[in-house]
Amino acid sequence: MNNVNFTVAEAGPFKDLISTSQDPVPGKLYLKSKLGLTGMEVSLNQLPTGGSVPFYHSHRENEELYLFVSGRGEFQVDGRILEIKEGTCIRVAPEGVRTHRNTGSEAMVFVCIQVKAESIQHWVESDAVVPDEPVMWEA
Amino acid sequence: MNNVNFTVAEAGPFKDLISTSQDPVPGKLYLKSKLGLTGMEVSLNQLPTGGSVPFYHSHRENEELYLFVSGRGEFQVDGRILEIKEGTCIRVAPEGVRTHRNTGSEAMVFVCIQVKAESIQHWVESDAVVPDEPVMWEA
Repeated sequence: MNNVNFTVAEAGPFKDLISTSQDPVPGKLYLKSKLGLTGMEVSLNQLPTGGSVPFYHSHRENEELYLFVSGRGEFQVDGRILEIKEGTCIRVAPEGVRTHRNTGSEAMVFVCIQVKAESIQHWVESDAVVPDEPVMWEA
Repeated sequence: MNNVNFTVAEAGPFKDLISTSQDPVPGKLYLKSKLGLTGMEVSLNQLPTGGSVPFYHSHRENEELYLFVSGRGEFQVDGRILEIKEGTCIRVAPEGVRTHRNTGSEAMVFVCIQVKAESIQHWVESDAVVPDEPVMWEA
């Protein structure tokens, strides 16, 4: 469903991502192309038990944020190892050399957000506009 | 735990956000200040049964993405109403006049991401750098 001011995609239940999405690997769903995002790339991810990202990577100019929704594991940045669990939020600067793995007994679900570092200019307080009209849900 | 190239925050279980975070309202946790984000504002949110955002809002220049993790509800943009469930992803352009509500029988959990529209310049393919070294987890 598309409109000038919004786009919608249905990823389905996160626990099924491994079987429902292979973009480009099983369990990964990129949202930029599905939604026409213009300022961020976002992926939804399910990493199976025993799974790991099999390489390190850093970025040229993009900041990343990893949000862990379920599962247990370890995250590595520049050789430092961090524990991952539900609610763990990790920002990585472009230069950070990162990877992570699932060390738990169930599939891990996480969201990864990528944006240009230093790009936002207005935060919530100065960017939001609240019109002076009551919310209407019924005709 | 902070380092030059990463920062970490623990939000805890999403089902407890209403009691663990009031930033600035119960159930909302903004991550920019906790993580030192430089290109995005991200909030983790739990909206209780029967809850709603009590106002419309749009943005001056920021694109928003709403990721719904659990619960059921309705999202409204420019008077159009969309169904919300687990896995629903909604991009809203700055000009879209938006609000949403929980119409289900349990608390709704969602992530809201805000970035400057049109700000990203390199996507995954051209921004990632993969060093030629194997991943090491053990000393």
